[in-house]
Amino acid sequence: MAESEFDIIQYYFSGRQPGRTDVVAGIGDDAALLSVAPGSELVVCMDTLVAGVHFPESATAAAIGHKALAVNLSDLAAMGAEPAWATLSLTLPVSDPDWLKAFADAFFALADNHGVQLVGGDTTRGPLAVTVQAHGLVPAGQALRRRGARPGDRVYVTGTLGDAGLALHEGVSVSPGLQACLDFPQPRIDAGVALRGQASAAIDISDGLLADLGHLLEYDGLGATLQVDVLPRSEEFRAGLQSLGAAGEALFYELPLAAGDDYELCFTVPEERCSEVERRLAEIDCACTVIGVIEKLPGIRCNRSSGEPYHPVLSGYQHFNEAG
Amino acid sequence: MAESEFDIIQYYFSGRQPGRTDVVAGIGDDAALLSVAPGSELVVCMDTLVAGVHFPESATAAAIGHKALAVNLSDLAAMGAEPAWATLSLTLPVSDPDWLKAFADAFFALADNHGVQLVGGDTTRGPLAVTVQAHGLVPAGQALRRRGARPGDRVYVTGTLGDAGLALHEGVSVSPGLQACLDFPQPRIDAGVALRGQASAAIDISDGLLADLGHLLEYDGLGATLQVDVLPRSEEFRAGLQSLGAAGEALFYELPLAAGDDYELCFTVPEERCSEVERRLAEIDCACTVIGVIEKLPGIRCNRSSGEPYHPVLSGYQHFNEAG
Repeated sequence: MAESEFDIIQYYFSGRQPGRTDVVAGIGDDAALLSVAPGSELVVCMDTLVAGVHFPESATAAAIGHKALAVNLSDLAAMGAEPAWATLSLTLPVSDPDWLKAFADAFFALADNHGVQLVGGDTTRGPLAVTVQAHGLVPAGQALRRRGARPGDRVYVTGTLGDAGLALHEGVSVSPGLQACLDFPQPRIDAGVALRGQASAAIDISDGLLADLGHLLEYDGLGATLQVDVLPRSEEFRAGLQSLGAAGEALFYELPLAAGDDYELCFTVPEERCSEVERRLAEIDCACTVIGVIEKLPGIRCNRSSGEPYHPVLSGYQHFNEAG
Repeated sequence: MAESEFDIIQYYFSGRQPGRTDVVAGIGDDAALLSVAPGSELVVCMDTLVAGVHFPESATAAAIGHKALAVNLSDLAAMGAEPAWATLSLTLPVSDPDWLKAFADAFFALADNHGVQLVGGDTTRGPLAVTVQAHGLVPAGQALRRRGARPGDRVYVTGTLGDAGLALHEGVSVSPGLQACLDFPQPRIDAGVALRGQASAAIDISDGLLADLGHLLEYDGLGATLQVDVLPRSEEFRAGLQSLGAAGEALFYELPLAAGDDYELCFTVPEERCSEVERRLAEIDCACTVIGVIEKLPGIRCNRSSGEPYHPVLSGYQHFNEAG
């Protein structure tokens, strides 16, 4: 494939997008040349998806192309950044035009939705893997961070939790809606921008709520108590659980708490700003739910609405994978 | 390995470097937060190295760690940029502490040499592959580009050519010097900076002189004539060829023309600036050689010092790999 590397890049990945004015040189030179507006800070993140690890070997090219970019845009969303540019490293065992077309179509559909221009990358032969670096911009000093939460702050999540996890669960009859949650997660870019200056801390939920909220809390040595009955669950999620019968009962709590791949935002807000945050998110049609409160005592405690404690069995993507 | 992913990153890749003042947030948040000085343009490039494709399975962890960063810094050099930040995606079949330590030590040794701070990345389980994105800075409008050469411009290369190619060649007894050229290429950062405002076009030689000069020429629909006897060859290269006997004779021309992995710069200079360019490069102890001249007629022509044409058998990395 090395010989046709340049052709592949040219054919599937060049000249498909209108140029952003801040791209001085995109694909085709030794490197991309980019202009960062004065007063903006640059936000960069990189994620790799490997076949058989981050997606099943059966995943469609479209799902892989979308998700490789989406997981990175989700990180930008968690920082309150607006996406600008992406680079893509694609490692492929063979050069399959149908696969490449479907991959590129999905990648660019999401990129175009968010004004992201592909400015460079690399195509190599090898076991299927995709690395994307996303570049975003945020007004200097206004980025959302993982640190910054304070005791008394309310803990919020956007959207619903557990959908992607349920789609991955063995024995579930997966509805198209659940499958779409897993394959085509929508990064919460608008929500991240709306939360600038309002949220005290934010993170995106890629490894599971408990794991990711844990990362947020550890920065400031804090803890939280969560209300597990109010965790937002979609109708599709509830219906999917019912199809599992008794086995579904434990998952009602476990999946929203511990399953990864939802790519919702988890963020904290001082009480006095909660109504403004809710107003802003309602304005952009982004559902949000208060699920708990930040406390001084380190650790995450879970309560049922009855007041009884709930003890999670799983605690994040990794354990979930082993147990599930 | 997923479970210990965070530990691996923390242990081997965090807190090893003094922080650059333009890194607002490095490893540890959802994304890195970086400050680009007003008046600077951002230069970004990404390269992936896959085991068995870009380096032999026998390559040492140190060579892989160095080269993964070096090939990207070489792209920055070709743009005249000064390196600033890097991100690293490391896909590993197993988590081997000795391997990781040697990889990280070599990566950071090169990074520290060039003032590069690692600001983020990803560690995943899978077949061995390394993706690095390098970020550099260049005064706005001063980046070197592949386009810009004009008929009459002299064609230069830095250093010597063919060393890495010879080290890869079957049957060669590889001296430590040649092996080092292959495993530990030194990106020509200082040369790139010195060429700002002087060179009319530049590219780094990763795929072989003919292939890469060809990329440079195609931008402006130009051609060049090269003097194949003056191509710069190291003493180690000449000695290595002698050990091959008659088989070495053809390689005397073919390797400097067509072998990849040298990571020298190839650049063009208008005649009136040649003495200034040579003075600047001498000042930083960077050898350079005039190897030809840009012409209107597309294509690359090769001449011996006798005036006879030389017809290359190979034309770049890809063919070289198939034939060699």
